[in-house]
Amino acid sequence: MTQFSRIGLIGRLDNQRARYSVDRLIRFLLTRDVQVLIEEQTAQIVDVGQHYPQLQVADMDELGTSCDLAIVVGGDGSLLSGARDLVQYDVPLLGINRGRLGFLTDIVPEDIEQKIAEVLAGEYVAEQRFLLDMQVVRDGAPVCGGDALNDVVLHPGEFIRMLEFELYVDDYFVTSQRSDGIIVSTPTGSTAYALSGGGPIMHPKLDAIVLVPMNPHTLSSRPMVVAGDSVIRILVGEGNSAVPQVTCDGQTHDPVRGGDQIIISKKPQHLKLIHPLNHNFYERCRSKLGWGGHLLDKS
Amino acid sequence: MTQFSRIGLIGRLDNQRARYSVDRLIRFLLTRDVQVLIEEQTAQIVDVGQHYPQLQVADMDELGTSCDLAIVVGGDGSLLSGARDLVQYDVPLLGINRGRLGFLTDIVPEDIEQKIAEVLAGEYVAEQRFLLDMQVVRDGAPVCGGDALNDVVLHPGEFIRMLEFELYVDDYFVTSQRSDGIIVSTPTGSTAYALSGGGPIMHPKLDAIVLVPMNPHTLSSRPMVVAGDSVIRILVGEGNSAVPQVTCDGQTHDPVRGGDQIIISKKPQHLKLIHPLNHNFYERCRSKLGWGGHLLDKS
Amino acid sequence: MTQFSRIGLIGRLDNQRARYSVDRLIRFLLTRDVQVLIEEQTAQIVDVGQHYPQLQVADMDELGTSCDLAIVVGGDGSLLSGARDLVQYDVPLLGINRGRLGFLTDIVPEDIEQKIAEVLAGEYVAEQRFLLDMQVVRDGAPVCGGDALNDVVLHPGEFIRMLEFELYVDDYFVTSQRSDGIIVSTPTGSTAYALSGGGPIMHPKLDAIVLVPMNPHTLSSRPMVVAGDSVIRILVGEGNSAVPQVTCDGQTHDPVRGGDQIIISKKPQHLKLIHPLNHNFYERCRSKLGWGGHLLDKS
Amino acid sequence: MTQFSRIGLIGRLDNQRARYSVDRLIRFLLTRDVQVLIEEQTAQIVDVGQHYPQLQVADMDELGTSCDLAIVVGGDGSLLSGARDLVQYDVPLLGINRGRLGFLTDIVPEDIEQKIAEVLAGEYVAEQRFLLDMQVVRDGAPVCGGDALNDVVLHPGEFIRMLEFELYVDDYFVTSQRSDGIIVSTPTGSTAYALSGGGPIMHPKLDAIVLVPMNPHTLSSRPMVVAGDSVIRILVGEGNSAVPQVTCDGQTHDPVRGGDQIIISKKPQHLKLIHPLNHNFYERCRSKLGWGGHLLDKS
Repeated sequence: MTQFSRIGLIGRLDNQRARYSVDRLIRFLLTRDVQVLIEEQTAQIVDVGQHYPQLQVADMDELGTSCDLAIVVGGDGSLLSGARDLVQYDVPLLGINRGRLGFLTDIVPEDIEQKIAEVLAGEYVAEQRFLLDMQVVRDGAPVCGGDALNDVVLHPGEFIRMLEFELYVDDYFVTSQRSDGIIVSTPTGSTAYALSGGGPIMHPKLDAIVLVPMNPHTLSSRPMVVAGDSVIRILVGEGNSAVPQVTCDGQTHDPVRGGDQIIISKKPQHLKLIHPLNHNFYERCRSKLGWGGHLLDKS
Repeated sequence: MTQFSRIGLIGRLDNQRARYSVDRLIRFLLTRDVQVLIEEQTAQIVDVGQHYPQLQVADMDELGTSCDLAIVVGGDGSLLSGARDLVQYDVPLLGINRGRLGFLTDIVPEDIEQKIAEVLAGEYVAEQRFLLDMQVVRDGAPVCGGDALNDVVLHPGEFIRMLEFELYVDDYFVTSQRSDGIIVSTPTGSTAYALSGGGPIMHPKLDAIVLVPMNPHTLSSRPMVVAGDSVIRILVGEGNSAVPQVTCDGQTHDPVRGGDQIIISKKPQHLKLIHPLNHNFYERCRSKLGWGGHLLDKS
Repeated sequence: MTQFSRIGLIGRLDNQRARYSVDRLIRFLLTRDVQVLIEEQTAQIVDVGQHYPQLQVADMDELGTSCDLAIVVGGDGSLLSGARDLVQYDVPLLGINRGRLGFLTDIVPEDIEQKIAEVLAGEYVAEQRFLLDMQVVRDGAPVCGGDALNDVVLHPGEFIRMLEFELYVDDYFVTSQRSDGIIVSTPTGSTAYALSGGGPIMHPKLDAIVLVPMNPHTLSSRPMVVAGDSVIRILVGEGNSAVPQVTCDGQTHDPVRGGDQIIISKKPQHLKLIHPLNHNFYERCRSKLGWGGHLLDKS
Repeated sequence: MTQFSRIGLIGRLDNQRARYSVDRLIRFLLTRDVQVLIEEQTAQIVDVGQHYPQLQVADMDELGTSCDLAIVVGGDGSLLSGARDLVQYDVPLLGINRGRLGFLTDIVPEDIEQKIAEVLAGEYVAEQRFLLDMQVVRDGAPVCGGDALNDVVLHPGEFIRMLEFELYVDDYFVTSQRSDGIIVSTPTGSTAYALSGGGPIMHPKLDAIVLVPMNPHTLSSRPMVVAGDSVIRILVGEGNSAVPQVTCDGQTHDPVRGGDQIIISKKPQHLKLIHPLNHNFYERCRSKLGWGGHLLDKS
């Protein structure tokens, strides 16, 4: 495995525990023979100038083009945001959680020194995750768009307003629907919002996209899984009483109109996720979702 | 597209309507420049000797090796059975339903002449479907097995008896479960029993397998979709009070014991399904599952 | 059965079809020996002064206190609104749909003359439906509230924002939850939004309230049915990032804050619904939800 | 509260832990001023003659008519069985679990002395639970029947066989169904098999019955809750390929035929359950179902 020598550092510092983890990580990295670039917002919050003057401050573009590893400190949401920012640069990401393990962030603060040392020494597993590309097309021209590592959600904008739309996959008409919206999720997102909405769990290496209707008005609606290279097209209906929105990873919100088409397909660029050697998707399902362990010997 | 010249004919003749369709099909084929082989059981039931002495009677092996198309008359269940019998021979299958359209059988009796004429003239779409290979391994040696186009189901054998087992995917331990069993389904089977059990609908071209728990005792169990090349291993628990069974396509039943391992993976041979040109999976979802059509113009 | 002599008329005239039904109903009532009061907004829209000068125009209060039957023309939503307005007056309601049958409105336009004649002649069934009383309590004092015939919904106000709250029933702590909100529904509402959210269908005469979690973050959440005389108390959490709202029948919206308590209980006043004699809840389930009819004789 | 002076003792002794609890309970009761009757099968297994010659051995009938409290040691299943045996005698039941708490058995072995002392001193809560009466009627005459505290289940007898039936409630036709069967459950049973089948949780004091379809073939089937005084009638279809069975509490099995009617209604006799003072249904949901506790203060 590759060894990393130029490390980017991104912290989403919404609380004390995240701040603690960033400090601990910086102090550790300063003891190693690596160059550290700290993202400019993160730099401000930890007051790099006063505490760590030896660190180089960089914007996302610089960080993406010059680092060979980016470490994100925060929750799964922080990693989603980092992934969307950096996917174009082909730099691998590693997540450190500020509290308990997430599905994407699999180092806890107390293990920072040991696990990061192993990763820097080349002891890690790398994994490809795909992202979704979302484009809103109005009157034949794209008007906005975004990327999603977890999911693209079309919703009515306001609660208790019906959303109506038509769904096409690979230019085949699938169905129309009246509902609270639809979740279009990657395997990565299948353990997040899509799971709350009743979608299946999909193994991260699966090349597939799941479409999960949200509170559909018809009882025959079901989650549907299509091939990862499918092109999903949603035609927003004309009869929506509020202003529907399309949301990427729960973090960006674009208003849409009746007649707009939302085109969703796999991005050509993949995210490379770095995990410690003991990473195991099913173990995470057991610990985070409460799945049962081995059958006990009951004799 | 290939044109077909040697046609095998298989009828599952459980009622008058199926008999009617077989007769109609034979009479049509006799007007075309093709050779017709009729499967021996089918031959007996339609009394070939008396009514169609010009037809050649064949067993499944002969039919599989010498035909370039096999037509199955019956319901989706008939096609499942035909597919398992013929998958080893690489002969494509075409299904004629005795009543309304199925998900697998997409010619209705009244369209036999028109649609079969088109197919014989090379106007059709061909589609690959994969099957599951199931092996029961006891004390390290295989004891029985089978193929499934739809699903492999492990169940307690008797109702209202709990089944306990451990689940492994690609040799990773996933979870243990106490339930009424588990459905392991192909995309083809995802609109059949797996759908009743709460599984997602999977597009036929998806390369994936879904695992659907049946009435699980823990509330955290969910359907799980894994890559089509996964090896699924189920270790039957020791505490089962009845004799659990493993069932392929709802048609074969093998008893299993505590300690047995059920190994399920994709078969190397695929089934080639022949459809009329207008075949459309989503249309079938709309007509069979009650999914909504286009939004009406409400101005 | 009572015969009715003083009829209130309420129309929710959102389209041409509703207007047509109101006109047809007025023309019919004018041929009968009954007094007709028309609600003032309805009066304006049908231009009573010009077309039906003989009708008495009344506000809701006058209509509620002096009529012995109120007829609502519109969809189920119109009847919900009429029910909340009139529940305090003890006047029975009858619903005429502008299109196809609803769960609450069970006369279609083409049957107006026949069915209304029967009802006026005392040929009808009367049924009690209960409503929910909702109060928001802040710092110990009520700040707002409302009534609901279908459901009270607590939601995050904006989509893709988590809502957190604690749930109490009859002062017992039940659980806390992070979700898209919770639907508290009467049996009447159980075939509406609560059904989309995964709740059970409850027979209208059942004395029970169902609580349906919306897209809950924990897999162990399930719909819960409690006795109709239960007092439900929801304590809004402090960690909500948007401004949560509480909504009655999908029609009223009140913002709430962290620390607010939402108290929901059965109203002492009931709604009396008038149905034609052939009314049948299960028939409506079959026609509106697609439930199967009698088994066919297959011999 | 009543104080108890004549105690019946029933043990379902399927393992060592249950045996331990029975011994511990007997030794405690012998120190109190109460009379103890031990059920005859239980007596044999603990070898009463040798170890506790002072105990009076009794059959169920004697125990039911002469005791003012019956204590059942075992799991929830033991209490179900005890409840069905004793419901006709109006003797209250108290459950001691052999391991962790159940929904029905809420004293653990280590608390036996303290909790039983409290109960004997009148410190307890008593609760009414209703049972279902099930009758199979063939050609107009009852042929068999049973009682159920949890649920009555109609199923195909063998797995992977479809069951078809028609459902009536209070003589109204509801729907026909093709499925793996139907669960008819009391509130008591709503946290057992009905929950695995997708039914709602119902509070024990609710006067209602839930009908849960098992793996239904139509996507529009949903759990349905009806009033507790409803009469449920299931007409077994003629087209079932296996021998369907009707099962009470998962413990009795009666075969049924096409044309049979299964009549299910509330039994006039109720079960009186005795709980320790701290009993709390919702606490049990949190501990057994994994529902979340109070929101944490996150400041």
